[in-house]
Amino acid sequence: MTAALWQRYLDWLYYHKSLGFYVDISRMRFSSEFVAQMEPRFHKAFEDMEALESGAIANPDEDRMVGHYWLRDPDLAPNDDLKRDIVDTLVQIEDFASKVRTGVIQPPGHKKFTDVLSIGIGGSALGPQFVAQALGPDFPPLDVHFIDNTDPEGIDRTLAKLDERLGSTLVIVISKSGGTPETRNGMVEVKHRFAQKGLDFAKQAVATTGIGSNLQKMAIQEGWLGTFPMHDWVGGRTSELSAVGLLPAALQGIDIRSILGGAKEMDAATRVHSLKDNPAAQLALSWYHAGNGKGEKDMVVLPYKDSLLLFSRYLQQRVMESLVKERDLDGNVAYQGIAVYGNKGATDQHAYVQQLREGVPSFFVTFIEVLEDRTGESVQVEPGVTSGDYLSGLLQGTRQALFDNSRESITVTIPQVNAHIIGALIALYERAVGLYASLVNINAYHQPGVEAGKKAAAGVLKVQLQIVQTVRQAGEPITIATLAEKMGAMDDIETIYKIVRHLHANQREIVINGDPGEPMALTVAML
Amino acid sequence: MTAALWQRYLDWLYYHKSLGFYVDISRMRFSSEFVAQMEPRFHKAFEDMEALESGAIANPDEDRMVGHYWLRDPDLAPNDDLKRDIVDTLVQIEDFASKVRTGVIQPPGHKKFTDVLSIGIGGSALGPQFVAQALGPDFPPLDVHFIDNTDPEGIDRTLAKLDERLGSTLVIVISKSGGTPETRNGMVEVKHRFAQKGLDFAKQAVATTGIGSNLQKMAIQEGWLGTFPMHDWVGGRTSELSAVGLLPAALQGIDIRSILGGAKEMDAATRVHSLKDNPAAQLALSWYHAGNGKGEKDMVVLPYKDSLLLFSRYLQQRVMESLVKERDLDGNVAYQGIAVYGNKGATDQHAYVQQLREGVPSFFVTFIEVLEDRTGESVQVEPGVTSGDYLSGLLQGTRQALFDNSRESITVTIPQVNAHIIGALIALYERAVGLYASLVNINAYHQPGVEAGKKAAAGVLKVQLQIVQTVRQAGEPITIATLAEKMGAMDDIETIYKIVRHLHANQREIVINGDPGEPMALTVAML
Repeated sequence: MTAALWQRYLDWLYYHKSLGFYVDISRMRFSSEFVAQMEPRFHKAFEDMEALESGAIANPDEDRMVGHYWLRDPDLAPNDDLKRDIVDTLVQIEDFASKVRTGVIQPPGHKKFTDVLSIGIGGSALGPQFVAQALGPDFPPLDVHFIDNTDPEGIDRTLAKLDERLGSTLVIVISKSGGTPETRNGMVEVKHRFAQKGLDFAKQAVATTGIGSNLQKMAIQEGWLGTFPMHDWVGGRTSELSAVGLLPAALQGIDIRSILGGAKEMDAATRVHSLKDNPAAQLALSWYHAGNGKGEKDMVVLPYKDSLLLFSRYLQQRVMESLVKERDLDGNVAYQGIAVYGNKGATDQHAYVQQLREGVPSFFVTFIEVLEDRTGESVQVEPGVTSGDYLSGLLQGTRQALFDNSRESITVTIPQVNAHIIGALIALYERAVGLYASLVNINAYHQPGVEAGKKAAAGVLKVQLQIVQTVRQAGEPITIATLAEKMGAMDDIETIYKIVRHLHANQREIVINGDPGEPMALTVAML
Repeated sequence: MTAALWQRYLDWLYYHKSLGFYVDISRMRFSSEFVAQMEPRFHKAFEDMEALESGAIANPDEDRMVGHYWLRDPDLAPNDDLKRDIVDTLVQIEDFASKVRTGVIQPPGHKKFTDVLSIGIGGSALGPQFVAQALGPDFPPLDVHFIDNTDPEGIDRTLAKLDERLGSTLVIVISKSGGTPETRNGMVEVKHRFAQKGLDFAKQAVATTGIGSNLQKMAIQEGWLGTFPMHDWVGGRTSELSAVGLLPAALQGIDIRSILGGAKEMDAATRVHSLKDNPAAQLALSWYHAGNGKGEKDMVVLPYKDSLLLFSRYLQQRVMESLVKERDLDGNVAYQGIAVYGNKGATDQHAYVQQLREGVPSFFVTFIEVLEDRTGESVQVEPGVTSGDYLSGLLQGTRQALFDNSRESITVTIPQVNAHIIGALIALYERAVGLYASLVNINAYHQPGVEAGKKAAAGVLKVQLQIVQTVRQAGEPITIATLAEKMGAMDDIETIYKIVRHLHANQREIVINGDPGEPMALTVAML
């Protein structure tokens, strides 16, 4: 059996020579019959992908092309205008970042910018955060900070840490539409703090946004330092290798051409029309097998390297937003999706391994292995053994222990964490998601569920404004039930109660009296 | 239907008056028949818990009492010695932390310690990390850093950031047995760095460890600044409110008596023998319902507050290590467990909501809501609306949108993030895990799977030493197959190949020649 397993390993091992990049799916227990069945479906998926890359409309709901692949190989763009645009944007980013780093572009009253504050959410936050953690030097030319939520306390904390350096902080506001509320809120809060401190926001701000968006118009009108384009053919989830991710990376001194180069190499490798010779197809095949084409198993991602901790969170957003769909491309109810989570090995294997070996067999693992332990010599922690040997041993041991207990795993092995490899890793998973989407017949490039969540939130905020108006008009303390009745919104009584509770907790216009444990007995009045 | 739902909300709403702490399980779709069925099982669970708290042996495999509850109410300890020990340890921690903060205890050549470096893994890392993020002040008296893995590059990065301040860094080594390899490795690496810089490690180090452990012996022998006890009746996963968590918290200026006080209040509230009036029982009931007592649904934890980001990762370890068990207390195969994951709202709802609304219905959500948005005034981001209103609206809207799509959720609402509440939150989940374990008849206080992972790793390291020996003896380049044959370990050929690849990548004794894509054709020799 061991000999057969080793043979299976050899048979399926994918190796990319110039990247030094391995993919091993030998510990996924698919059969050769399964592979034979899937071959024709992959044939179609490869063709879909070719059409997409040559400019076909791949997002029918939104009538958009899907062109993030062109970013790393502009020669593939469907026309010269697009190509020039991509090339020019890259030069613009490098030029701007270089001028900021060298102090040619200065904040008012300071010789150089010291910090970058990036305001964005979703794809506009996780990609840049992942890259900063993976590739950011120990002492970057500019320290990077993120506002990635509409949490007032979180914003306060970030601004408190910047405090004295706010006058030398470059702010990047990232929003494709310019209308993402969380990002808009972060921007308003930061502008407010700048004003409080007598700083000129416009002289320290840039926007990365869609051409013609309200954000772009505002940036131009207010005279911001510059704007960078988010093209309509790049989705938020695949924007890491556009200005969204490249600008903050360049400001930290990360080699962005190298990231793009790695992605380009991986893009080429994942265009191969062969299951065995295409690492993205290997991943898509494994995902399909594990979850029976229906996401029945969760994908647990465990990079054994501290600097890759955020990779699982980045992938979570990347994969879940793309693949989770109620309906397929033919409009049939499909409830598609793959749940993705994970932190880092060996640290979090303390929790996962227990579950993986002994618990509900509800997931499969992707190990990310990095061959180089560190630059420089290692001290021995035992005779002949280093810390890195332990990390490697824990990965191998865990993979083996899981397999012995009939749990499946994929292993992606990279030579080291550098810009070239991170580009390749991003590209690998972008392609795998695209191929998988094609296999299960869904549109990977829209996100109706996210919109639904936003709509529901907007509804809640509308009710809030009505509450304040109604309580003011009442002129005396009223119960929650009376309030709901006066608003003609008995169906919303629980929402009304929650909003009132929140306003009260923040001393905002409304005050509650009574026992909080008895909501029906509470009275509401103006503060 | 809306009226019935509101009534259900009112019926099940749990409110703790002095903590201002709410638990809402009205959006879990259990029936009153289900509750009636569960009543007797909870009766037993409450009794089990009482026995445990009064000193019964609750971890039969390891013949240990389970006493983390005594830490927050020493009067409950089963004898006076234990009680005195708990009280004295707390005084010792406060005294030490105060002397460090005020400079009474100094590093050699410096007036004060500036930083804390905590070395530990699993329960000895996640709890302190969670508390530091939740409660650490913007400008703490000592900045805290963690080494929580055996990743050489990660260790290098942490030490690089400390660099010039290493001479004023207090090192805490946390390991109950003193034999946790990851922690030992971190300690060896840090000691090595101290030696390289001519610093005296012992003068800057303390240990938190089991009484009589090798680590304690070493600390005493080498004259470290001090040692703090990890009692054998406190498990690693429930050690946050022992010296493990309290010492780093106190050094950051966090009010540890307040944490303990909050936990004590919640402990009392969760001793109530009534499903409706016991918030931990409400959680356990909901978990049981969601997963059919078999963990069939994942638990997604989404705190809508940046400072609580690590809560889901902390809970993941807490819950998964405790509840995941292959066998129940009667020795029957049960494959128990609940998979836990999550990041933070609203940020990560971009990924989750899509899955939750439209994808595989494989999980239920726990929202953590914080009523107070921030200390101080909020700027309006729209007329009458603040960033905090958006955060609250997104939570309410998401909860509602999920329910409309038949997805279940629990909402835990806290007044603000402070020491008292964090203590209560930790205690709530500790108790819920204990009750759930009793419901499904498992030992929540051991972790055989983790041990298995460690054993497998140790096996890999043993093979590594044999490889180097065998290659040296061979005296000429040999193939992987020959190497395995010479070692008499053909069954381990894949492990051997992986180890050789790792050694080669780190220029450690072994060198490989040939095409890495063809493992069987590679030859191995001494470097």
